Amino acid sequence: MLTPQQVEQYERDGLLVLPSFFSLEEIGALMADVPRIVAMDRPEIAKSAAGETCAALALHRYSAVFDRFMHHPLLIETARQLLGGDIYCHQYKIVCKDPMGSLDFPWHQDFGNWHDLDGMPEPKALNISIYLDEVTEFNGPVAFIPGSHRHGRIPSLAETPAGLVNTTTLARLNRGVIEELVNEHGIVAPKGPRGSVAIFHGLTAHASTPNISPWTRHILYFTANRMTNAIRKPTRPDYVAHRDFVQLEPETEAA
Amino acid sequence: MLTPQQVEQYERDGLLVLPSFFSLEEIGALMADVPRIVAMDRPEIAKSAAGETCAALALHRYSAVFDRFMHHPLLIETARQLLGGDIYCHQYKIVCKDPMGSLDFPWHQDFGNWHDLDGMPEPKALNISIYLDEVTEFNGPVAFIPGSHRHGRIPSLAETPAGLVNTTTLARLNRGVIEELVNEHGIVAPKGPRGSVAIFHGLTAHASTPNISPWTRHILYFTANRMTNAIRKPTRPDYVAHRDFVQLEPETEAA
Repeated sequence: MLTPQQVEQYERDGLLVLPSFFSLEEIGALMADVPRIVAMDRPEIAKSAAGETCAALALHRYSAVFDRFMHHPLLIETARQLLGGDIYCHQYKIVCKDPMGSLDFPWHQDFGNWHDLDGMPEPKALNISIYLDEVTEFNGPVAFIPGSHRHGRIPSLAETPAGLVNTTTLARLNRGVIEELVNEHGIVAPKGPRGSVAIFHGLTAHASTPNISPWTRHILYFTANRMTNAIRKPTRPDYVAHRDFVQLEPETEAA
Repeated sequence: MLTPQQVEQYERDGLLVLPSFFSLEEIGALMADVPRIVAMDRPEIAKSAAGETCAALALHRYSAVFDRFMHHPLLIETARQLLGGDIYCHQYKIVCKDPMGSLDFPWHQDFGNWHDLDGMPEPKALNISIYLDEVTEFNGPVAFIPGSHRHGRIPSLAETPAGLVNTTTLARLNRGVIEELVNEHGIVAPKGPRGSVAIFHGLTAHASTPNISPWTRHILYFTANRMTNAIRKPTRPDYVAHRDFVQLEPETEAA
């Protein structure tokens, strides 16, 4: 369980970083299945225009080890504690940044898409991002504006990021808004070893640059949504916006 | 004059960082002319595909304040000391990264172009880069592989970076080479306030990501070349590869 100070920090910043939250053994078991996953030819495996694999969605459908990890007590209990109730998984994906690759993301709030494209009623969802590779200054770390979630939903313009071809649009925040938010709150880009975790609110503004390092940057995203906040009008495929609404319960690792 | 330790560091790393080397007043005088410069419609003002001004070349031709600065004793004496003889200016440009813009650069050695496109005989040239804006983690700092210059000219592939339309190609270094160099030497991306300087050898590998901050990132590049190493077979316009070969002498600021 998170400490009251950690919960308070999450509520204040919309961001909570937990270095080495998962063990290297747990991460190693997940990474061992990644080469098989990214080589698959399935709609859940999203490619960039340049042919790089940039994301693997709905991992639990085709990976036993990722399916088990989805029920990890640390994931479920942390999400329950921060969201204040029972949860299901809205998205479960790896975002892959290739070495010296092109994938980047403009400033956006995830709740923009969850609401507009999936029909999520309220911003009662969060991401637990898990570093499957070490995240450094040079491999495209995610940059956040801490506290930006407290500004609520910010008007934005839907557009397709250059790097992504077959996934989705993003509701891009404009310069004026970002300038105001950064003046007030600054920017942070948490780095850390494999197994580190950055938890962020669905309204926390974030962006990232391409990976200029010669190594991969895989980050696993587990998006938890309150059972009572299940999506109503999904327009994206069910591997992008899950609609089975199965309440997740912690299961002690049997692997 | 640089200390023997600073000269040694430059020779070892192909990189020397001098925080706040120029005063805020000197930088302020230069920056005051930048809005006029980037608004000009001249071949020296390079635009990106998106219409952003991404570079202003041969600044001394159309800016009195930049022309004077080109003769700054600190620039000339530093370049002379590190190159071991009299110099002229091969390039003199601002690279502008717009707020939340698209301009980035793949890994390359500048000497690749100086040799292949301009006919520079030997790598006896260096860049003095001067931060006209504060350079932070988030506005596209230049990342260097210290010590990479000691590997000499590395075979590479000429290509046009996505962000640049009317300037030039870059000799892009491939992943295998970068992985070896980074394993041996690491990567650094020097940040610093306005007026800071990063001096780097023509063979030092470097790259940079786009600016995700809401503010501009202007860096001034003064490329010094030994008089005895003047270019022989220029193929690029004279505002990209100067061919007047005027020996520079320090002039105490009269402005």
